[in-house]
Amino acid sequence: MIIEKISRALGVEPWRIKGALDRHTIRIVKDFTPNYIVFKKSLGQIERGTSVFLNDDLDVVPGFPKIQRAFYLRPVVERHFGEKIAVEEKMNGYNVRAFLVNNKVYALTRGGFICPYTTAKLREISGIKKFLSDHNVVLCGEVVGMENPYVIHEYPEAGKFGFFVFDIREKKSNDPKPIQERNSLLDAYGIRYVRLIGIFKKAIVVEEIFKIIKELEKENREGVVLKDPDMKIPPIKYTSSKTNTSDLAYAFRFPYDYGRDFFFSRIMREGYQALELEEEEDDLKKRALRLGESLLYPMVETMKKIKKGEIVTEDFTVRVNSRREISKIETYLRRQGVDVNIVDIREEENGFVARVKRMRHSTNDKIRSLLSGKIE
Amino acid sequence: MIIEKISRALGVEPWRIKGALDRHTIRIVKDFTPNYIVFKKSLGQIERGTSVFLNDDLDVVPGFPKIQRAFYLRPVVERHFGEKIAVEEKMNGYNVRAFLVNNKVYALTRGGFICPYTTAKLREISGIKKFLSDHNVVLCGEVVGMENPYVIHEYPEAGKFGFFVFDIREKKSNDPKPIQERNSLLDAYGIRYVRLIGIFKKAIVVEEIFKIIKELEKENREGVVLKDPDMKIPPIKYTSSKTNTSDLAYAFRFPYDYGRDFFFSRIMREGYQALELEEEEDDLKKRALRLGESLLYPMVETMKKIKKGEIVTEDFTVRVNSRREISKIETYLRRQGVDVNIVDIREEENGFVARVKRMRHSTNDKIRSLLSGKIE
Repeated sequence: MIIEKISRALGVEPWRIKGALDRHTIRIVKDFTPNYIVFKKSLGQIERGTSVFLNDDLDVVPGFPKIQRAFYLRPVVERHFGEKIAVEEKMNGYNVRAFLVNNKVYALTRGGFICPYTTAKLREISGIKKFLSDHNVVLCGEVVGMENPYVIHEYPEAGKFGFFVFDIREKKSNDPKPIQERNSLLDAYGIRYVRLIGIFKKAIVVEEIFKIIKELEKENREGVVLKDPDMKIPPIKYTSSKTNTSDLAYAFRFPYDYGRDFFFSRIMREGYQALELEEEEDDLKKRALRLGESLLYPMVETMKKIKKGEIVTEDFTVRVNSRREISKIETYLRRQGVDVNIVDIREEENGFVARVKRMRHSTNDKIRSLLSGKIE
Repeated sequence: MIIEKISRALGVEPWRIKGALDRHTIRIVKDFTPNYIVFKKSLGQIERGTSVFLNDDLDVVPGFPKIQRAFYLRPVVERHFGEKIAVEEKMNGYNVRAFLVNNKVYALTRGGFICPYTTAKLREISGIKKFLSDHNVVLCGEVVGMENPYVIHEYPEAGKFGFFVFDIREKKSNDPKPIQERNSLLDAYGIRYVRLIGIFKKAIVVEEIFKIIKELEKENREGVVLKDPDMKIPPIKYTSSKTNTSDLAYAFRFPYDYGRDFFFSRIMREGYQALELEEEEDDLKKRALRLGESLLYPMVETMKKIKKGEIVTEDFTVRVNSRREISKIETYLRRQGVDVNIVDIREEENGFVARVKRMRHSTNDKIRSLLSGKIE
């Protein structure tokens, strides 16, 4: 019976829902009221990360569609967009969808699970609840800053925890609002959104983007998302070389825990960008050095630590109102398959601060064994 | 019936042979007299690359065992070897096993297939046939030089085609001869072998190896193989940084055709070596630059060519006695799944020289599509 309700709510045949449940590509989350289901893979038109809340209304929060990437920019712009192209800043954080269920704000991370930490934090941001009560939509945005258990990147404008909306999407259709409309709506509620750097004519946008990327790089900012101002065409992302190499440098602290494809695609991006910028000699050499350092230095640092007998972990800070929240975060992350230990819980004026240590077993085990004389 | 003969010759139960045939992990080569079978995977004690010739004697040529690699040298030496360690030069070519079937010399490449090119070339080297007639063994060695369809690397001592033995192995047991005995035997027939750089005491060998590696690097030589002089302990290989980065530079000409693991393992080797050599600042920076250049430069060169509309291929030269041999090589490589075109066949004084162009479809297709505006 529940399958039929879900089937009607999503417009998908019941047998397909049943099949996905059997294959475990749909997961049911039961330690939550209301229970909800999560699409771990896409199913027909239903995006991966879609969640359906099993309350009377059967609220559906569609998955956030993957934003495709340009490797070589000029022909992408020419083929893909209309005459005007909006250039927004792409922020380096984690993708969150905020929405209302039973009149309460919840936050889903990319995979479609309710993150207790992000949920608690978004509830502290004024305007969000009011906005979602007035508009039956999903606020899609990036959480950035220094205090969260996922992605640490400093933004002066974000402080410890910042939420910057990049899309207002209809629940049913998953259609995003045009950019200007999105901004006006959010302004009225004092909700922050990603920076619109400019709307450019197609003929000049590529030159502009490379100038923008250069400026963003100076401030350690990630890159841009190119959008049709009316949001009728899917957006496309493009990132700076500094972002590619910072990603590599971060991941090479834990080289055996990240996928080979993660490394490979970022290395390749450097080639496409060097080609498009027609770099020669000095510039190319600088890029090569930056690339080489991003691979070698962090891995040697990690090896040195392991040689000394240390264990390398990935460390995050979280700030919450109660000890109970900390253990909820721990339980949540463990269930997601992330092996964490929470340490150094200390009480501060307005609550508790704790360190989340993510264990990186493959890197520790592999390096330790090779340093102690394993051959392979 | 043939299954039972093979089973007896190898000491493996018939049902296991039959199973492997059914799973196609044993392949039968029928366009050859006598027919032979090849183990594409190991089966119990039988090495991958083992070939069994279906003549009356059922000649077995065991697969060449994988030589394991040291990433971090000192503890490997300490744990693995006895008091004396022989250091031989590891040459950069392809692994070949030479042996006699029906009184004729044949050459198997690593996978266990008879290579018509290598076979023809080895028959031109005096001493090999006489040696194999006198001793019922397998000569395992590296083919190096500028003329072959597999690995091109210049060695002044090798000329266009050189065969350097590194093991004399018993057919039945696959046991290798002790090093001094191997060298004396080969000397008597004028057969060349890899350079024995020295036999060192355990206490000093690591320092020696790093000195040797430094010297080898200056001459663009690959690295070393460490051996128990009595060959009772499996050998271990260790390569120079220059080899790692040359491998990377070569493979990054065709980045989408090589496996991600190929890249990853070579990048990681740089870290272990930098750590063991305790490199800091300048040296580490030089290593980083060398690493970055080995990735970036060849890939940008390839992209430039493809952008200009060229097709990038991997080119080899072969030199044979007849046009018929050229087409045999072509047929052989195609059957091995290597897509080649033979071009520029020209007659010279002592035969024919041809270029073998190996197609690298993934690299050409992928780069072409991304340069023309594909997103992903």
